[in-house]
Amino acid sequence: MFLGDVMESLAVNSAGEVAWPLASRGDRASTTVRIRDVVIGGAEFVVIAGPCSVETREQVQEIATRVGRAGAALFRAGAFKPRTSPYAFQGLGDDGLAILAQTVSRAMPVVSEALDAAQLARVAETADVVQVGARNMHNTSLLRAVAACGRPVLLKRGFAATIDELLLAAEYILAHGNPHVLLCERGIRTFERAMRNTADLASVALLKRLTHLPVLVDPSHATGRADLVAPVAQAALAVGADGLIVEVHHVPSQSWSDADQAISCDAFDDLMRALAVQAPLFRRTMRSTSTADAASLRRCREVIDGIDEALLALLSERVKVARAAAAIKGELGLPLRTPDREREILRRVAQAESELPADARLRLFRLVIDETLAAEQPRDTQEVTRD
Amino acid sequence: MFLGDVMESLAVNSAGEVAWPLASRGDRASTTVRIRDVVIGGAEFVVIAGPCSVETREQVQEIATRVGRAGAALFRAGAFKPRTSPYAFQGLGDDGLAILAQTVSRAMPVVSEALDAAQLARVAETADVVQVGARNMHNTSLLRAVAACGRPVLLKRGFAATIDELLLAAEYILAHGNPHVLLCERGIRTFERAMRNTADLASVALLKRLTHLPVLVDPSHATGRADLVAPVAQAALAVGADGLIVEVHHVPSQSWSDADQAISCDAFDDLMRALAVQAPLFRRTMRSTSTADAASLRRCREVIDGIDEALLALLSERVKVARAAAAIKGELGLPLRTPDREREILRRVAQAESELPADARLRLFRLVIDETLAAEQPRDTQEVTRD
Amino acid sequence: MFLGDVMESLAVNSAGEVAWPLASRGDRASTTVRIRDVVIGGAEFVVIAGPCSVETREQVQEIATRVGRAGAALFRAGAFKPRTSPYAFQGLGDDGLAILAQTVSRAMPVVSEALDAAQLARVAETADVVQVGARNMHNTSLLRAVAACGRPVLLKRGFAATIDELLLAAEYILAHGNPHVLLCERGIRTFERAMRNTADLASVALLKRLTHLPVLVDPSHATGRADLVAPVAQAALAVGADGLIVEVHHVPSQSWSDADQAISCDAFDDLMRALAVQAPLFRRTMRSTSTADAASLRRCREVIDGIDEALLALLSERVKVARAAAAIKGELGLPLRTPDREREILRRVAQAESELPADARLRLFRLVIDETLAAEQPRDTQEVTRD
Amino acid sequence: MFLGDVMESLAVNSAGEVAWPLASRGDRASTTVRIRDVVIGGAEFVVIAGPCSVETREQVQEIATRVGRAGAALFRAGAFKPRTSPYAFQGLGDDGLAILAQTVSRAMPVVSEALDAAQLARVAETADVVQVGARNMHNTSLLRAVAACGRPVLLKRGFAATIDELLLAAEYILAHGNPHVLLCERGIRTFERAMRNTADLASVALLKRLTHLPVLVDPSHATGRADLVAPVAQAALAVGADGLIVEVHHVPSQSWSDADQAISCDAFDDLMRALAVQAPLFRRTMRSTSTADAASLRRCREVIDGIDEALLALLSERVKVARAAAAIKGELGLPLRTPDREREILRRVAQAESELPADARLRLFRLVIDETLAAEQPRDTQEVTRD
Repeated sequence: MFLGDVMESLAVNSAGEVAWPLASRGDRASTTVRIRDVVIGGAEFVVIAGPCSVETREQVQEIATRVGRAGAALFRAGAFKPRTSPYAFQGLGDDGLAILAQTVSRAMPVVSEALDAAQLARVAETADVVQVGARNMHNTSLLRAVAACGRPVLLKRGFAATIDELLLAAEYILAHGNPHVLLCERGIRTFERAMRNTADLASVALLKRLTHLPVLVDPSHATGRADLVAPVAQAALAVGADGLIVEVHHVPSQSWSDADQAISCDAFDDLMRALAVQAPLFRRTMRSTSTADAASLRRCREVIDGIDEALLALLSERVKVARAAAAIKGELGLPLRTPDREREILRRVAQAESELPADARLRLFRLVIDETLAAEQPRDTQEVTRD
Repeated sequence: MFLGDVMESLAVNSAGEVAWPLASRGDRASTTVRIRDVVIGGAEFVVIAGPCSVETREQVQEIATRVGRAGAALFRAGAFKPRTSPYAFQGLGDDGLAILAQTVSRAMPVVSEALDAAQLARVAETADVVQVGARNMHNTSLLRAVAACGRPVLLKRGFAATIDELLLAAEYILAHGNPHVLLCERGIRTFERAMRNTADLASVALLKRLTHLPVLVDPSHATGRADLVAPVAQAALAVGADGLIVEVHHVPSQSWSDADQAISCDAFDDLMRALAVQAPLFRRTMRSTSTADAASLRRCREVIDGIDEALLALLSERVKVARAAAAIKGELGLPLRTPDREREILRRVAQAESELPADARLRLFRLVIDETLAAEQPRDTQEVTRD
Repeated sequence: MFLGDVMESLAVNSAGEVAWPLASRGDRASTTVRIRDVVIGGAEFVVIAGPCSVETREQVQEIATRVGRAGAALFRAGAFKPRTSPYAFQGLGDDGLAILAQTVSRAMPVVSEALDAAQLARVAETADVVQVGARNMHNTSLLRAVAACGRPVLLKRGFAATIDELLLAAEYILAHGNPHVLLCERGIRTFERAMRNTADLASVALLKRLTHLPVLVDPSHATGRADLVAPVAQAALAVGADGLIVEVHHVPSQSWSDADQAISCDAFDDLMRALAVQAPLFRRTMRSTSTADAASLRRCREVIDGIDEALLALLSERVKVARAAAAIKGELGLPLRTPDREREILRRVAQAESELPADARLRLFRLVIDETLAAEQPRDTQEVTRD
Repeated sequence: MFLGDVMESLAVNSAGEVAWPLASRGDRASTTVRIRDVVIGGAEFVVIAGPCSVETREQVQEIATRVGRAGAALFRAGAFKPRTSPYAFQGLGDDGLAILAQTVSRAMPVVSEALDAAQLARVAETADVVQVGARNMHNTSLLRAVAACGRPVLLKRGFAATIDELLLAAEYILAHGNPHVLLCERGIRTFERAMRNTADLASVALLKRLTHLPVLVDPSHATGRADLVAPVAQAALAVGADGLIVEVHHVPSQSWSDADQAISCDAFDDLMRALAVQAPLFRRTMRSTSTADAASLRRCREVIDGIDEALLALLSERVKVARAAAAIKGELGLPLRTPDREREILRRVAQAESELPADARLRLFRLVIDETLAAEQPRDTQEVTRD
C-alpha cells in the first residue's frame, strides 16, 4: 500500500531527473547490437550456448559443432572463472582463450567473461562479446574498463541487484562511451533455495519498458537445474526476452564446473526445436543450422516436423473456433458463409510478409477456409453438403 | 556449492521418507479437478478472471459477461478481503456472496476466498472453488477446515513460503480428506520492490515435477502492475502452468482494491486472443467464448485472425528451414525432392488428432509440401520449374 | 538511492495520514501491559520462557520451576501448534491447556498460542496472554477475534512481514478494542539459511521509535540454534527490547518440537545471570527468583557474584580512565585533585535512585574516589604517598 | 524441517572436508590483527570511525580530532567510492589519499577502500588497512590482489552473501598469503526496506564460532539511518563483535555521500561513552581518548560519570538480590550472615585482574558487603541493628 512511490522512483529520482538518462527507453527505438552477422535486439531470438568453462580443445570443438548445428548464434565459454571457493577450478586462463581462438571463434562469435582490467585486453582480443558476470555487476572499476574495451558487453544482473542498479550499471558503460550493452537476467537470490536462484522473468518485461537495451535470460544460472532449463527458456521467449544464454555440455556430469545446470547437447537440440516452432508466434525468428552435413539436414527435418505439428494443432483450433462461430451464427439467424469476411481474410493473407509467395499463400488459405467451413458444420449437415 | 543437499531434501526428509506422500508426484498421473464443465489440470489451459472484490451487482455482471465472452472458464471475486490495513475496504461480506449467487454463478463457476472457518460454509455455498489466500497458506486451522468444505480448494503460495511449505500446506488439505487442490504461484516477496512481488515462474516447472496437483499462476499479484500481466501470463503458459487467475476490472482505475494491477476488459480480450493462438503450441487448448451474441461472434473472428497470422508465420518459417535443408542437400549432392520423407510427413498428418477430418488434413498438407518445395528453390530455378 | 521515499512512507501514507494512528508513537508515552504482577514495557526487562510445546505434566512442572527460579516472569508453552507438516506433532490441544491450568498457571502467568477463533476462548481461559504466531500475523480474522478475547496479545512478526505490516496487524487489534498488544520480533526469512531466520534486531530500535507498544524478541526462532540464543538475547537487551521470549527445555534433545533451538535449563540460568548483571547498564531491571529454596538461594549468590565481577571490571576501568585524565592534567599543568569535581560526583551519588541508602552510597563513593586517586598515580608516586 | 543439512554443510562440504580450512576456527585461538598500537580481535572493542568520503583537508582534520578524542582507534574515509550511479560523486581519488596522508594518518591508523588492483598500491601506501567493500566481496581478482598488498584487509560482507561465501572470500585472501583479515557484517539485503539493509547481528555470533578471524560490525550501512546507529552498535558489542566501523561527519546533512546514515560528532561522543561503560560487562575494554587537551579531560570525566552511574545501578541491584536471598534464608531458617560466603567473595576479589591494587579492592568490597548487609534487612530491623 505504501510502496507506490517506489515504482515511480524507478525511473525518476527525487530531483525529477531520470536516473539513467542513456539507458532509459524514453521514446527511443530498441537498440540492436551487431556481432559479426548476428543482431541482438531485433527480430531474431538469439541463443548463446556453450559450456561453463573451456576445458579442452576437443570439448570446445564438440560442443560448438553441436550447438551451432542446433541454431545457436554465439558460443559461450569461460577462460577466467569467478569461483566462490579459492580451491575450485578457476578456469584455464590464457590457455583457455587460446583454445577458443584456435577452434570455435573462426566459426562462431564467442562470449567470454573478464574478471578484471588486466585480463580485459586479452579476453577482448579473442571474444566478440565480453561478459561482466553477476559477481562483478557492482564492480564499477570493471564497468569503466569494459566501456573502453572495444567490444559489446554482456552485463549480468547481480545476485541481489535491483532493476534500478542493473540499469545504473549499464549506465556506467554507456556513460563511459560503449553503447553496445546487453542486459542479462540470470536469477536473483531469495529465500527460496530449492533452485539455485529465483528466475525473475517479470523483470524482463519491465526492463523492455524501462530501457531500449536488449535483454537476455540465462535459464541455467537462474535455476541451477538442468531439468528446468527448457521450460524457463521457453518462458523467457514468451515474456519478451531478446534471447538466451544457456550452459550446454557434451557430458554434463563431467563438466568441470556447474555440472548440475548444464544440459546435454541432445537436450539443447530439443529445446531449440521447440523454440524454433514457438518463436514465430511471439513475432520472433530463429536462425537455422550453421553447418552443412547429414546431421544438420536431419535437424532441419525435425524442425519442419515440429512446425507441421504446430500447423496441425492450429488448424484444429481454427475449426473449433469456427464451429463456435457457426453456432452463434445459427442462434443469431445469420448465414454460415460470409463472403466479405472471407475476402478480408484473403486480403490480409496476401499482404503478409512471408518467405512464401503471395499466390502460394492465397492458394493455401483458400483451401484452409474451405476445409474449415466443411469441418465446422454438424456431422449430418456435412454429409448432406458432401452429397 | 554446499546447497546440493537441499534440493534432494525437497522431496525426501532426513528419515528418507517423502515429506508430502499424498501430494508427491511419484509415478502418479496428473490430477484433474472438475468444476461443473471445467477440468483443471488436463489439456485445457484454464483461465479464471474477475475483479479483486465484489463491488456492485452491475460491476459483477459487466465483468462476468466480458471475461466469459473472452473465454474465461471461471469467475473470481472476493466477498471477504484480507487487507493489510484495518481501515482498508474489507469486502462486502455476505452481501458480496449474495451478489455472486444472484448474478454470475448461474452462468460460470465462481472462485472466492474464505478467511476463516466461520465464513467457510457460506463461501462454499456460493462459490464452486474456495480460495485460501497467500496470507493464510500457513493457517493450518483454515487448511483443516477447507478440507471438509466439500469444494475444491485454490491454495495460494504464501508471501515467503518455500516450495516445500506450499506442498506441505496442500498435504494438510489432502490428508484431511479433500483431494481437489489447485496450487497457485502468485509471486514471492524478495528484495526487488519494483514490482509488488517476484513471479517465481520456474517454481511452476519444478512443482509440475514434484507433484501431481494442478498449478495455476496469478500474474496480477505476482507483478502488481497491469502492464506486466500479459507477458507474465504468456510466460506462465510457456513454463507449463495449467492455467491462470487474473484480476480484471471494467474500469480499473476505479477498482475498490488492487487498482494498479487490474487489467481492463479490453486488455483481457487481447491477452486471451494471444493465449488462444499460443496454447496449441504448448499442447494446450483454450475454451471458446461462453456467450452467443454479436460481440462473441466478433471475438471468434479475432481469434481466427490470430490463428491465421500464426499459420502464416509458421508457413514462412517452414519455407526458411526447407530452404536451409535444400542448400545442405545441394552441398551434399542429394536430390531436392525426397518421396519417402514426403510420405512420412503425410502419414503423420493422417494420424494426428484433430478437429479437421483426415482427408482435409491430407489435402492441405499436400499443398503445403508442394508450395514449400516451390518456394525453397532459388528464384530463377523457380521460374524454370514453373514453365 | 531512490528508496528514500519509502522510509517516510513508513509512517505516513500517500494522503499524508498516519497509516496506523493507534499504534503510532506520536507524542505518546510508552504503553505498559500488566499481567498479574508483571509489567511489560516499563523498567523491567521481562523474560518469558518455557518449552515449545506442552508435553507432559512433569515436563511443564520441571521447566516452570527452573525458569521461575532463574527469574522468568512468564511461562510459555504451546497446546495448539502450527506445524508446517500435517504429520508433525500438532500439540496436545485441550489436554495441553489442562496441564497448564493444573500446574504452572497457579505460580506464573502463562503465554500460549491460539490458532483460530474456535480455540481462542479455551486458550484465553487458561493463558494470561494469547499469542498470535508468525504464521498468523496476516490472519485478519484471528486478529479481530483476539481483539475481543479479554487478554493481552503477544503478536509475532510474520516470516516476511515488513515493519509496516506488523504495525498494521497491531492496528487491527487496537482498532477492534484491545489496547494490550505486545509486538515480537522473531526473525525474518532471507536468503541466509545458515540460521533458521535472520534476527532483525535493528527493527526493534526502529519499532521503539515508531510505536508506543512494547517490543519483545524471540532469539530462539530468530536463530533456530541453541548456541546462538544467549548472544542474540543479550543483543536484544542492548538494542532496546522490552523483553524476551525464549524456548527452554529440561532435555532439549528430547523436545517434541523445535529441538535444535531449545536451550537447557542450565543454559537459561547462565543467560539470565548475564542479563541480570547487564540490564542495569541499559536502565533496566530484572526480576529475582520466584521460589524460596536452597537452589534459589544459590542462584541469588551466583547473580551477586556476577554483579561483583561487573563492579570489579568497572572499578578497574574507572582507574584506567582516571589515569588518562591525570596524564592530561599533568600535561596541562592542572592539579590532580579537584575538590569541586569530587563534590559534584558525591552530589550526584546522593541524589541517585537506589535500593542502597544515601549515606551508604556516600561512604562507598568516598572510598571509590580515594582509592581511584591513589591508583591513578604513577607507581613511585604511589609509594611515596603511602608512606 | 528439511534444512538441517545446510547448517552442517556450512562447515563441511559433501566430501567431508572443511570448505575454508584456513578461515575455520577448528581448535585455533582467535586471531588478532595488529595495526600500529591497535590490536583487533583481542580484549579491546575497537572502533573505527570517520566520514564516508574524504571531502576536504579541514573536514578530515575536524572529524579525526573529534573521533580520536572520543576513543576511536582507527580513522575511516574513502578516496575511491563505489557508487551505484555513474553520475554520483566518485570520491577525490588520489587527491583524497594525499589529504589522508598529510593529515590524519600521522595521528591515527587509517582504513580506506580500494576498488581495483590499479588503485591498490596507492591506497596501501597511505592506508594502514585496505577495505574490500560489499560490492567487491565476490570480486576474486581484487581478493587475490589485496592478498599481496602488504596490509591487513577489512573484508565487508556482500549485499547478498551467505556466511559461507563471506568465509570463502576470506579464504581467498588467506590462501593467497595474507593472514590479516578482518570480517565485517554490514547488513544484508532483504525484503525489508524500511532500513537500508537488515543488520544480521546473529551472524556475528555464528561467525565467532565458525572462524578465528576478528568480526566487526558496520551499524551505519547496516541500517542506513543515523538514529539507529547507536542501538545497533551497542547490540554489536553485546552479540560478541570485536569492534565497529561507524560513519561520522561533523555536519552530517552536508555529507557528500551517505548523508542519511552519518552520525554527528556529538552523537558519536555519546555512543562511545555508553560503550565505554558497557564494554567491561562483556569482558571488553575500550581505549581512552587519544589527545591531551581540555576537551579530552572533559570527556574522561564524562566517562567516569557514566561508570559511576553504572556502579550505582549495580550496587542497587546487588542490594535487591541480597534482599531476596535474605528472604529465602529467613524462610529456610538460615542465618543472614554467612562468614564462609563472605570470605569466598573476598578471595575472588583479591584474585581478580584489575588496575586497582588488591588491598584497595578488598577495602572497597568489605564496605560493599557491609553496606549491602545493612540495606538488605527489613527497615525496622535495620534501625534496631543500628542502635
